[in-house]
Amino acid sequence: MKYEFTIQKTTSPKEKPDPNTLKFGKTFSDHMFVMDFETGKGWHDGRIVPYGNLSLDPAAAVFHYGQEMFEGMKAYRTKDGRIQLFRPYMNAERTRKTNERMCMPDIDPELFVGAIKALVNVERDWIPEKEGTSLYIRPFIIADDPFLGVQAANHYMFIIILSPVGPYYDIPGGGMAPTKIFVEDEYVRAAVGGAGFAKVGGNYGAALKAQTRAADHGCAQVLWLDAIEHSYVEEIGTSNAFFMIGDEVITAPLLGTILPGVTRASVIELLNKWGIKVSERRLRIGDVVKAAEEGTLGEIFASGTAAVISPVGELKFKNSSIIIADGGVGPIAQRLYDTLYGIQTGTLADDMGWTVEV
Amino acid sequence: MKYEFTIQKTTSPKEKPDPNTLKFGKTFSDHMFVMDFETGKGWHDGRIVPYGNLSLDPAAAVFHYGQEMFEGMKAYRTKDGRIQLFRPYMNAERTRKTNERMCMPDIDPELFVGAIKALVNVERDWIPEKEGTSLYIRPFIIADDPFLGVQAANHYMFIIILSPVGPYYDIPGGGMAPTKIFVEDEYVRAAVGGAGFAKVGGNYGAALKAQTRAADHGCAQVLWLDAIEHSYVEEIGTSNAFFMIGDEVITAPLLGTILPGVTRASVIELLNKWGIKVSERRLRIGDVVKAAEEGTLGEIFASGTAAVISPVGELKFKNSSIIIADGGVGPIAQRLYDTLYGIQTGTLADDMGWTVEV
Repeated sequence: MKYEFTIQKTTSPKEKPDPNTLKFGKTFSDHMFVMDFETGKGWHDGRIVPYGNLSLDPAAAVFHYGQEMFEGMKAYRTKDGRIQLFRPYMNAERTRKTNERMCMPDIDPELFVGAIKALVNVERDWIPEKEGTSLYIRPFIIADDPFLGVQAANHYMFIIILSPVGPYYDIPGGGMAPTKIFVEDEYVRAAVGGAGFAKVGGNYGAALKAQTRAADHGCAQVLWLDAIEHSYVEEIGTSNAFFMIGDEVITAPLLGTILPGVTRASVIELLNKWGIKVSERRLRIGDVVKAAEEGTLGEIFASGTAAVISPVGELKFKNSSIIIADGGVGPIAQRLYDTLYGIQTGTLADDMGWTVEV
Repeated sequence: MKYEFTIQKTTSPKEKPDPNTLKFGKTFSDHMFVMDFETGKGWHDGRIVPYGNLSLDPAAAVFHYGQEMFEGMKAYRTKDGRIQLFRPYMNAERTRKTNERMCMPDIDPELFVGAIKALVNVERDWIPEKEGTSLYIRPFIIADDPFLGVQAANHYMFIIILSPVGPYYDIPGGGMAPTKIFVEDEYVRAAVGGAGFAKVGGNYGAALKAQTRAADHGCAQVLWLDAIEHSYVEEIGTSNAFFMIGDEVITAPLLGTILPGVTRASVIELLNKWGIKVSERRLRIGDVVKAAEEGTLGEIFASGTAAVISPVGELKFKNSSIIIADGGVGPIAQRLYDTLYGIQTGTLADDMGWTVEV
């Protein structure tokens, strides 16, 4: 099915930000996409309108019961002037799973991707050209029934906003910067039977406390452990986590507590393609420590849309500290970053069929 | 400290709803309270203004990361025309704990209760007089920084809205109606280390799925079990749960996964005062089933602001069904309801010192 949207252009376009000083998620483009859902009527009235405030009843469900979801992805401008998205149908499929978990209405992947393409197309000039920059895409859905009963809402808004962003690492010449990570053994992100696999606001708001605690320990992020034994490694901050021990790369399996990352899936596919052993299996933090002691812990890195690949240089666990890959960037992290970023930005041929042109 | 708020009266007051057909949380009064917080400036500009839509940037943190909290309480009109709140400082103290967990700014209990009193005072005429009705009070705080980074916001709004509500049970002559409850052994509400003790939107949105499943089984609500063993009883829907086995009333202890209910605390205090044994301790669902089989399960009831006391008439667990108190209202539930509701509405003397006059 092909979807049609109305377009209302702004009469007061904003000045584009300086591509050299772009921050993450602070500047937004001239237009946004908005679509309504009503029980019995379905998704309707998809429209591209000037970026502007939402006017919502203070009783709107999103303010009280967190019935909300979001996605994150990027549009890249290639050297030859094309605009491409990275595996947007994976975000669309994850949205369906999130919505099912949150009792929110299903959304056709063609509608989801079609709306993103239509908005990015209108905002082509907002995609920065400088190396390391891109246009961050934030689709989100909120329940806006003005009703205080605790029940699934009957009205929702699907909104997409765009933000030109700079390189995630502020390094002259580009590349990655290894981070310090705090192993969080008190606060918990998600339990089996919860909503940890869904991309919902509640998972993020409740995680801020641990993030603050990590910062108090001089760390950029936390490594989450499982809710039951506080033993198995799960995610790093809002990213998926990979551990190279010996000749095996290990990441947590999708058992309900892990966000099924698009970059995570791509990492696994690339490692398989390269003949590097990669396992989705449970791994105890104790075994990570033991591997470090025995000298078999090669690399730790996180994967996500924002930074693509983020190597861990140091792990703080209880009162000890583990230095990984000499505190630098390991060869697997480097190869993954170069390949993924190369495919995303079009400097490498997309032999995986991952990019979608706008 | 005494707080002062500005008052801007509406020029178009609404018609009051028919007190005989009041629903929960659908009608709102003429005014609302709004106050802003900014890092470095603190809470400021507390104001009572006409009830109306909030205008928020689509990038506001509350839409994406669920940094939001709410409270719930009621104002009652007594037969002799006084207006009273029920233990509002307990809600204020819980708000402080919630905000601490969610990295939201602390709020002085005197400000919290003062704002409620000021708004209820302006809206005196909105408190319905009919038996069983009250004015529901919904304070909530939302993070509204227009920034997509995952971090605690620097700007918040504290808002209070009011909704005249009817009796929770739609029973001629008033009183309680026993409910059917589904024992949820798959979905999980909260794990130790999570935010289950905090009154945050994320806990409610993620719980809708189980509520839907309970409805599919013909049940009004779920009985949540613990996240680790799926064995210990925790809450009933959005209420606290009490089990009378033999001569002991048992409720889940406050170990981080349970909302510390104001009604829960009041039930415990009343039972203690009456010389009825009440224990805050962990209780396995298996022991509840065993007690039913042995004939020692006297009553099960939920406690909360909306219904005060809600007796459970039937428990559905796996493929079996347990009838409690012959499917009726047990004597402890009845006595608690009569006493709490009597104190709240002023028909009983408040010898506990629980009510606060507006």
